[in-house]
Amino acid sequence: MQNFEFKNPTEILFGRGMIAKLDSRVPTAAPVLLLYGGGSIKRNGVYDQIKAALKNRQVVEFGGIEANPLYETCIEAVKAVRSNQVGFILAVGGGSVLDAAKFIAVAARYEGADPWEILRTHGQSIQAALPLGAVLTLPATGSESNGYAVISRKATTEKLAFASILAFPVFSVLDPETTYSLPRKQVRNGIVDAFMHVMEQYMTYPCAAPLQDRFAEAILETLIETGPVTLAEPENYEARAAFMWSATMALNTLIGCGVPQDWSTHMIGHELTAFYGLDHAETLAIVLPGIWKHQFDRKKAKLEQYGRRVWKVKTPEEAMARTEDFLHALGMPTRLGDYKIDAREAAEKVRTRFAERKTRLGEHGDIDPDGVAEVLRSRA
Amino acid sequence: MQNFEFKNPTEILFGRGMIAKLDSRVPTAAPVLLLYGGGSIKRNGVYDQIKAALKNRQVVEFGGIEANPLYETCIEAVKAVRSNQVGFILAVGGGSVLDAAKFIAVAARYEGADPWEILRTHGQSIQAALPLGAVLTLPATGSESNGYAVISRKATTEKLAFASILAFPVFSVLDPETTYSLPRKQVRNGIVDAFMHVMEQYMTYPCAAPLQDRFAEAILETLIETGPVTLAEPENYEARAAFMWSATMALNTLIGCGVPQDWSTHMIGHELTAFYGLDHAETLAIVLPGIWKHQFDRKKAKLEQYGRRVWKVKTPEEAMARTEDFLHALGMPTRLGDYKIDAREAAEKVRTRFAERKTRLGEHGDIDPDGVAEVLRSRA
Repeated sequence: MQNFEFKNPTEILFGRGMIAKLDSRVPTAAPVLLLYGGGSIKRNGVYDQIKAALKNRQVVEFGGIEANPLYETCIEAVKAVRSNQVGFILAVGGGSVLDAAKFIAVAARYEGADPWEILRTHGQSIQAALPLGAVLTLPATGSESNGYAVISRKATTEKLAFASILAFPVFSVLDPETTYSLPRKQVRNGIVDAFMHVMEQYMTYPCAAPLQDRFAEAILETLIETGPVTLAEPENYEARAAFMWSATMALNTLIGCGVPQDWSTHMIGHELTAFYGLDHAETLAIVLPGIWKHQFDRKKAKLEQYGRRVWKVKTPEEAMARTEDFLHALGMPTRLGDYKIDAREAAEKVRTRFAERKTRLGEHGDIDPDGVAEVLRSRA
Repeated sequence: MQNFEFKNPTEILFGRGMIAKLDSRVPTAAPVLLLYGGGSIKRNGVYDQIKAALKNRQVVEFGGIEANPLYETCIEAVKAVRSNQVGFILAVGGGSVLDAAKFIAVAARYEGADPWEILRTHGQSIQAALPLGAVLTLPATGSESNGYAVISRKATTEKLAFASILAFPVFSVLDPETTYSLPRKQVRNGIVDAFMHVMEQYMTYPCAAPLQDRFAEAILETLIETGPVTLAEPENYEARAAFMWSATMALNTLIGCGVPQDWSTHMIGHELTAFYGLDHAETLAIVLPGIWKHQFDRKKAKLEQYGRRVWKVKTPEEAMARTEDFLHALGMPTRLGDYKIDAREAAEKVRTRFAERKTRLGEHGDIDPDGVAEVLRSRA
């Protein structure tokens, strides 16, 4: 086991009717910024529950946060925070609204001249943040219980991430019932996203961290068991609750304690989203099998363990096949051809970009730009 | 899954050499109370590491915290806190020193006339606390990452617990190497203690919390796998690290989220310690098999799941037998007769005490004092 530091101060309020607890959690001293996305919360009853819980607060609304939240939009929200002397941000939505709320929270308290510095330094320049809370309506990213955020800048087409202990939500409300009205595709993407978060922290090499391994396998097994159920039965509370809690645990940084991590699938996937506009989860499902094939010799011990424990199969090859079968059963394509994308072209585009940045990926840092191209060509 | 609220703000600093991090974590503004037990830390090098890390702080030492920490001793420490204007408490030791530190931290900031009220109200009367941190040298109780403490009062022979979010350590340092010199019996007790903490939160009835179940099973499997190894090879870092992290996860309140809990084994065990002076873990190993037998019909579905997943056996009876075998393999007796205690006498003593208090135990509240007597008679 490697040395590690772990801290996760977010309070989780989980279950039916927990939005009412906002009344005891949101400060009363200053106005609250209510941040949301496209407005689905006004159609599914979540907005009304929140307004009822906050009836004794002054609420400043800011809607329209995009699926890949834009820096430009966040800066408008920062202006609203300042002009209204907002003291607390309540994010209502999925990972995008959460990520935007985190950036707005730190940018509102940033004393430098240019808040883009926060992203350029990946959070190193953060000194303070407004407190923020969340009502999560889309289980997927784990942003409700971590300090990570990804923000895109329209003007320069940059997409940067930052991390800060100050960006953890003070609390997050997770009521599975608020997710019943999600489109099937978003639920499918959420299951795959959570599954991939676990894999990035688990599918590396044995490193004498048996509890972390078993926790990771526990989340994978729960997603495999409840994923198809919650897709087929959106209003099955128990299945949705198990999925929702699994997605949080997948990226609240616990299972990554003391173990090597990979994240190459995410890094390559981000480029496929940038070039072709695929959903984040769609890109991960394409890339992962390619990474496993490319890194087979280095990952085979862990693939064998995963196959034996999670799928009850004997070989790493069977574990890989079962994983793709699982993704297909969720209705998730796993090849570039499924989207009519030319694999050679995609490989060359991503190779060029990584070569410019001198990026090397994987837990051993041994996937070079040519290796990335090889991975993508194998996903035709 | 039941609704739940979960918050655990403790920062974990895990691994070799992490005591040096105290320098960046312990505030410098006011004197630090260095709290410890019988002085083993002066023989195993831990004390020297801590003094080196705190060389720029004013340190007030307070040793002599007992194995079952006494209210009377804690009150003396509170006086030392006040007379030295201490601003931070650093607990160095196992659960007893941690528990004492928690009580001292809240008692030092208690404004009422009688600090015993804190315990009489089980923490309800706590309004503030000094911040505290820990260097854990005995993996067992989970006290390094929760808000629980148990304190005994010599004058009245009372033993009461309290809980408070204000009593969570700000940080805890877990360096497996600091535990190498522990006596074998304390390591055995720690493994059993952690195992039993999981069982109290797991061995109830199925309640559609698949991730919590699998996390609990993950800890049990890790303890079963690494427990015998760390007993046999105290300086095997990897085994000790896996055990240490398992003990923390067993009672940092995560696996108890959203599930029914039992705790009858602990409640009965506390009385056996009070009457016969057995170690806490020794009492748990005696009581658990009796509770399972007494509650067989209500627990058999979960016992079957446990047997199938953890022990790879088919019946609940086999799961029970394997569990006792595991305890014996650790060198832990499981019967009152092993300590020359008369089971009928013990049953009657504990029955009487619970009858006076009208105690009913178990996840269904259906183990009455006669039931407790039956449990203990079965452990002759």
